[in-house]
Amino acid sequence: MSSPVYEHLALIGCGLMGGSFALAAKQAGLVKSVGGYSRSIGSARRALELGIVDSVAETAEQCVQGADLVLLAVPVGATQATLQSLLPSLASHALVMDVGSTKQDVTQAARAALGERIAQFMPAHPICGKEVAGIEHASTSLYKGQQVILTPLEEHGAGFIDQATEVWAALGCRVRRMDPCLHDQSLAAVSHFPHMLAFAFMQSLMAQTEAEQFLAVAGPGFRDSTRIAAGDPELWTDVLLANATAVISQSQRLHSALFELESLLHSQNRQAVRDFIVLASKRRANWQMGASPAGD
Amino acid sequence: MSSPVYEHLALIGCGLMGGSFALAAKQAGLVKSVGGYSRSIGSARRALELGIVDSVAETAEQCVQGADLVLLAVPVGATQATLQSLLPSLASHALVMDVGSTKQDVTQAARAALGERIAQFMPAHPICGKEVAGIEHASTSLYKGQQVILTPLEEHGAGFIDQATEVWAALGCRVRRMDPCLHDQSLAAVSHFPHMLAFAFMQSLMAQTEAEQFLAVAGPGFRDSTRIAAGDPELWTDVLLANATAVISQSQRLHSALFELESLLHSQNRQAVRDFIVLASKRRANWQMGASPAGD
Repeated sequence: MSSPVYEHLALIGCGLMGGSFALAAKQAGLVKSVGGYSRSIGSARRALELGIVDSVAETAEQCVQGADLVLLAVPVGATQATLQSLLPSLASHALVMDVGSTKQDVTQAARAALGERIAQFMPAHPICGKEVAGIEHASTSLYKGQQVILTPLEEHGAGFIDQATEVWAALGCRVRRMDPCLHDQSLAAVSHFPHMLAFAFMQSLMAQTEAEQFLAVAGPGFRDSTRIAAGDPELWTDVLLANATAVISQSQRLHSALFELESLLHSQNRQAVRDFIVLASKRRANWQMGASPAGD
Repeated sequence: MSSPVYEHLALIGCGLMGGSFALAAKQAGLVKSVGGYSRSIGSARRALELGIVDSVAETAEQCVQGADLVLLAVPVGATQATLQSLLPSLASHALVMDVGSTKQDVTQAARAALGERIAQFMPAHPICGKEVAGIEHASTSLYKGQQVILTPLEEHGAGFIDQATEVWAALGCRVRRMDPCLHDQSLAAVSHFPHMLAFAFMQSLMAQTEAEQFLAVAGPGFRDSTRIAAGDPELWTDVLLANATAVISQSQRLHSALFELESLLHSQNRQAVRDFIVLASKRRANWQMGASPAGD
């Protein structure tokens, strides 16, 4: 399928995710022009200086005027208020998507804000990011080759879903559809909780008086396993609070697995420790990013 | 200082660490020839085929004949038995080092095996590795730019310590000296426990019925934070058992930090969650691999 061309993209939120979308969409010829709005006007102005947007709007409402594609790239907690503010000037044919890491709360917020115009809104979650935030780090390649999950609503027809799919496909993404509840549980397990774990691990490490000496001998394993602990605090505060029940449940499961391994180590049960590690190691070695689950 | 040149390296254990040492030592002109021994003769023969060693010995004792440099690259649990077996033919001027991830138990094992000849043995730990094991993955660049920790004994004079330092420096390593107890505690905190955590996390994830669906949407954050879970089960069983007390202590600290964050999320305490994450994120962002601790 050939990608549709949009006349004007309204970028609501000029940060890493939004800026990278605008850059990639322009490069792919998906959009002809881009207008930007950000809550802090400085980010939108910087996006203008960097050539990421072609114009800057003072309000979200002003930004979406004349737009046939709207990307909401704001903290998930700001979804409802932002959609409410832009609704008065939103064209009825415009396609609106977000990039939030949780989808049940975003869907609920969008329903509350948009009412019957919810059919214009496609909840979307590109599975990518960086451990640095802000428009300065926006990159044309952030989305390339990455997965995007759409969680269509019952109001959406096949044509609308295809249209949303084509936008992401034009950016080089692989698109998967999912139920919003399964989305949030899945992401809690493989993304949100791992971030929570990395934050907690850094805290438990730094609380020790010898922390600086410990860190001085940390190597590549530490570097990679804790990279996500440097994630944007605003974004992750938002995500962990939004998906609290699911991440707490994952945390409880981890406590159990750790207790089990502690007990095996404490009793120096070599065979059982080895069995535990063999299974974990095999499972990780067999995982491939982006591979479909069996039967998918 | 110029690197000494050794006539003959005896490589006891032909795996990733040993094979990479032999390759790098040859490339650096540090050794003229390399003889290999491995418990499973197949690994030593494969090292010969790959040109990593120049000859293969049937026993460790045979392997160290004529060697002025000996590298012990076996599981830490095999240190004592291996040193005992090679001792009868070990030249009195030969420098012997290991590459084990724990140093208190290795020192104890070496004392038990070598007696008064302990002065020939320098406990060494290069902070590097791969999530794949075996001689096939040996690489000239594994050690380059990495840290090596030496834990000298009271029997060691400055000249011997310098000699050991020069060997690793010739391979492009940065060498640090440390007390064996602080070494084991430090590595528990930044390497051994993170591996334990990664193994436990994979187990807790895979125990869930939706595991395959969860894994299908895992992205770059999951990939990096769990890379070490694919580590060699033999090696990590050995290391975690050898350093069990210290890793269990780190695990208990992590439980506490996680409980704290769970409680903040459960009560939707946005400010406190944010403060927790800000601190963790700053600490991780400020860490640089190989940087010296303050005052070092």
